[in-house]
Amino acid sequence: MYQFPHKNILDTDQFSKEDLDFIIQKTNVMKELLHSGKSFGMLHGKLLASLFFEASTRTRLSFESAMERLGGRVISTVGFQFSSISKGETLYDTMKMIEAYADIAVIRHPVEGSSRIAAGAVKMPVINAGDGAGQHPTQALLDMYTIKSEKGKLDGITVGFIGDLKYGRTIHSLIKLLKYYKIHLYLISPEELVLPDSYKRDVDGYPLTFEETRDIKKIWECDVIYVTRIQEERFPDHKEYDRLKETYKVNKELILASKKHTTVLHPLPRVSELSTDVDDLPNAAYFRQAEYGVIVRMTLLCLCLGVEIKEL
Amino acid sequence: MYQFPHKNILDTDQFSKEDLDFIIQKTNVMKELLHSGKSFGMLHGKLLASLFFEASTRTRLSFESAMERLGGRVISTVGFQFSSISKGETLYDTMKMIEAYADIAVIRHPVEGSSRIAAGAVKMPVINAGDGAGQHPTQALLDMYTIKSEKGKLDGITVGFIGDLKYGRTIHSLIKLLKYYKIHLYLISPEELVLPDSYKRDVDGYPLTFEETRDIKKIWECDVIYVTRIQEERFPDHKEYDRLKETYKVNKELILASKKHTTVLHPLPRVSELSTDVDDLPNAAYFRQAEYGVIVRMTLLCLCLGVEIKEL
Amino acid sequence: MYQFPHKNILDTDQFSKEDLDFIIQKTNVMKELLHSGKSFGMLHGKLLASLFFEASTRTRLSFESAMERLGGRVISTVGFQFSSISKGETLYDTMKMIEAYADIAVIRHPVEGSSRIAAGAVKMPVINAGDGAGQHPTQALLDMYTIKSEKGKLDGITVGFIGDLKYGRTIHSLIKLLKYYKIHLYLISPEELVLPDSYKRDVDGYPLTFEETRDIKKIWECDVIYVTRIQEERFPDHKEYDRLKETYKVNKELILASKKHTTVLHPLPRVSELSTDVDDLPNAAYFRQAEYGVIVRMTLLCLCLGVEIKEL
Repeated sequence: MYQFPHKNILDTDQFSKEDLDFIIQKTNVMKELLHSGKSFGMLHGKLLASLFFEASTRTRLSFESAMERLGGRVISTVGFQFSSISKGETLYDTMKMIEAYADIAVIRHPVEGSSRIAAGAVKMPVINAGDGAGQHPTQALLDMYTIKSEKGKLDGITVGFIGDLKYGRTIHSLIKLLKYYKIHLYLISPEELVLPDSYKRDVDGYPLTFEETRDIKKIWECDVIYVTRIQEERFPDHKEYDRLKETYKVNKELILASKKHTTVLHPLPRVSELSTDVDDLPNAAYFRQAEYGVIVRMTLLCLCLGVEIKEL
Repeated sequence: MYQFPHKNILDTDQFSKEDLDFIIQKTNVMKELLHSGKSFGMLHGKLLASLFFEASTRTRLSFESAMERLGGRVISTVGFQFSSISKGETLYDTMKMIEAYADIAVIRHPVEGSSRIAAGAVKMPVINAGDGAGQHPTQALLDMYTIKSEKGKLDGITVGFIGDLKYGRTIHSLIKLLKYYKIHLYLISPEELVLPDSYKRDVDGYPLTFEETRDIKKIWECDVIYVTRIQEERFPDHKEYDRLKETYKVNKELILASKKHTTVLHPLPRVSELSTDVDDLPNAAYFRQAEYGVIVRMTLLCLCLGVEIKEL
Repeated sequence: MYQFPHKNILDTDQFSKEDLDFIIQKTNVMKELLHSGKSFGMLHGKLLASLFFEASTRTRLSFESAMERLGGRVISTVGFQFSSISKGETLYDTMKMIEAYADIAVIRHPVEGSSRIAAGAVKMPVINAGDGAGQHPTQALLDMYTIKSEKGKLDGITVGFIGDLKYGRTIHSLIKLLKYYKIHLYLISPEELVLPDSYKRDVDGYPLTFEETRDIKKIWECDVIYVTRIQEERFPDHKEYDRLKETYKVNKELILASKKHTTVLHPLPRVSELSTDVDDLPNAAYFRQAEYGVIVRMTLLCLCLGVEIKEL
C-alpha cells in the first residue's frame, strides 16, 4: 500500500506522480474536514516553529492559519532578529536549538539551499517556504491543486502561462509538477522573457506538451491561464517595457472574448498585468487560490507529522 | 426584538443609543463570564487576523488578549513587513487574501478611511483599531463603558474633558457616544485648544449639554474627568506651552480638594499632565480602563461574529 | 512543609538551597509529564505576556514554547514597537496596562534592574528573561539542571569553567547557584579574563571550592566543562587575542584525551571556541541544554502561577 514517503517538503523535484495524486486526494478530504469543522484538533498539542528569516507576511500567515485551523500552536519569528545569527551562528546550530522548542518547522530564508541545510540538522520535519532564488514548493502544490479543483481534472486540459516566464519562480516550480499530466501548455511571453531551456528539457519524456508563442490571443484556447508580472527592471529600454506591459495585459474584455470558461490564476501580488475588472467574473480564481493554499498546507503539515487524514 | 445590526465596527457614528445600551449590557455579562472563567471557549475554533500596518502595541495586545480569553486563536502581523504592499499591492487585494486565512480581522492603518476600504473588500467582519487621523471606535466604547462602570450610570452625571480638546482624537470619538445621555459636560482647555465647532454642532438636539471654560477648578463639580495630553508641538511659543502645561495639570491635591469622588480617566500614555501621585487614590481609574478595554473588545468580537453572549 | 516562596523570578540571589532542590525535583516531574503528553493543559486558560523590549529570539521562543506546551496562550511583542514608550511612558505605566491583558509576564529589557521595577508595578508574576548587564536567572537554573541531569548529581563532581570568566554573564549567575553544592570548580581562563573577586568572595563559606588556572588541560579532571566565548573586543592587541583563542579552544581531540566522560556545556551561540567536531560525541550536551531549558521554564511558569506539578 502507498505510504507518503516524505518527512520534509523541500523542493518540487522530490515528488512522484503518485505523491501528487495522493496529496490531491488528501487535500480533498481535508477540505471537507475543514468545512465541517472537524479539522480542528487534528494537530492538538503540536507546535509549529514559523521561522521567517526574511519577511513574507502572506506565506507566513497562510502557514500559521493552517496550523491553527488544525488546533495546533505556533511560535513565530520574523527577520534577522535572530541576534545569535548576527553574532555569527550557523543555521545548523540555530536549527538544533529550535528543535528543542517545536515539533515541526516552516522556514523562509534568503539564501538558496538553506532549507535543505536546516532539514539536515534536525530530526523534526522541515517545510521550505521559499529560499532565495530557489524553491517554493508549497506554492507550486497549491497552484496545481487550484487548477485541479477549478477544472475537476488535470489530464486533458489546456493551460497558458503568461508574462515573465524567464524569471517567474512560481511558473518554474509549477511546470515541474504539471509535467506528469496530459496537459497542453502555451508559453505566452515576449521574446526577452521566454522559459529557459533547462525547464523545457526537464519535461522531455513526460505527458505534458508545450508550445511557445508571442500571441496573447492563444489564451482563448486555454481552460486555465496563469498570469505573472512583467518586471520593469528587466528592460533596459523603458519604452519597450511599456509596450510589452500593454501587450500582455489580461482584462475582462479579453477573458469574455473566449468561448471557453477560462479560469484565471495569478500568484499575487499583481500590478497592472491583471486588471481589477476581472475580479467580479466567476473565472477569477486568484483569491480562491489563497483558500486552497491554507488547505494544501494543512494537508502537508499532517502528512509530514505522520497524522492520518481520514475521510468523514 | 432587538438584534445587533453591525457586522463591522468602523466608526462611532454607526451606533444608535439602543446599540450602545446593548453593548453596555452585554459587556456586563461578559465581565461576569470572564471572572467566572466561562468566557474561555466562546470563540473556540475562530481565528482573528490582527493586522497592524503601523505599530500600536497596547491596542494590539488588548485585542489579542480579548481573542485568547475567548479561547480563539490569533495570527498577527506588525508593520510594513507586508512585502506585497511595498510591491504596490492594494489594501483590497491584501484583504481578499487575508480573508482566506481568518474569520475576523482587526486593522490598524496609518491612512484615514482604510478600515472602511478593508471592510468593503471582504465578507468577514472587520474592526477598526485606528486609521490615521480618523476613528478609533473601540477606544471610545471602552471609555464610555469605563464611565458607566465606575459611576453606575451615564444619565445625570457631570463629566469634564481637560487639556487638548482641539486635536485629542479620543475626546472627539467619545463625545459622539456620550451625546445620547443626559450628561453635563465641561470642556476645560486653553483657548488655543478648544473643541472644534463641528463636534459642538454634532451634539445639537441630543440630551448632552456642555459648557466651555478655561478654569481647571471646574473639575470640582465633575463626577468624572477625562485628562488628555497637551502636546508641545502645538505651540510656537515655548513659554506659553510651559505655562499651560502647569495650568492644566491634574494632581492629588487638586483631586482631593473636590467634595465629589471624582473619577479620573486618561487614555494613556501620560506625560506630565497627570501626576503619578494620583495613582494610589481609588479615584484613579485609568489603569482599570485597560481591563475594561479587554472586556469591551471581547464583547465586540462575539457580537461581530454573531456569537451569543448568554448570562450565567 | 516546604512551599515555593517566590511569585517572581528576578535574580539568582533570591534562591535558597531548598528552593533549588525543589525546582530540580519538580523539573524532573515536569519532564515526565511532558514526555507522557500530560503537561498539555496544565496552564489551560492562562495567558503569558512575552515582553521583549530587546530582541532575543531563542529565549523568547523557549519561553513561548514552554507556555504552549502547558496548553497556555501567549501574547507577544518584540522591540521598541512600544510606541507609548517612545512617547516617554514609564515602565511602571506600561506594566500596569499589560497586567490587564495577561496572567503572567516574561520580560527582557536592555536596562539593568528593570525586571524588578516591572515586578513592583503589578500583582501578576514576573519572570526576568535578562535585563542588561544584570541577571538572567532562568539561564542559570537551566544550566544547573542540565549538569544535574547529565551527571545524576551535583555533590561530589568537578566542574570547569573555560574562557571569558570576567565578562561571561552566564558563568556569573551559575556560580551563585552551584555554590550550595560540594562541587570542585576549575576556573580556566587567560589572566586578562579571570573571575572578578566579588564572585569569589560570594562563595566564601559555602560547600563549593575553586581553583584558578591558566591550563586548559585541567578539563581532563572535570566531569563537566562549561565553555564560553572569548570576545575579540576585549583585547587591544589583536595578536594576543588570536593566541588565546587558539589556547582556549575545545575540540574533539581534547575531549577524547580525557579519562573521564567529560560533559560539554556551552550557552550558545558559539564561534570558534568550541569545535563542531565535538557535536557528534555523546559528551556534547549543549543542544540538550535547549531542551532542558524549555522544561525548566515550564516548571517555573507553573510555580509562579501557583499551579501544582503532581507526579504521574
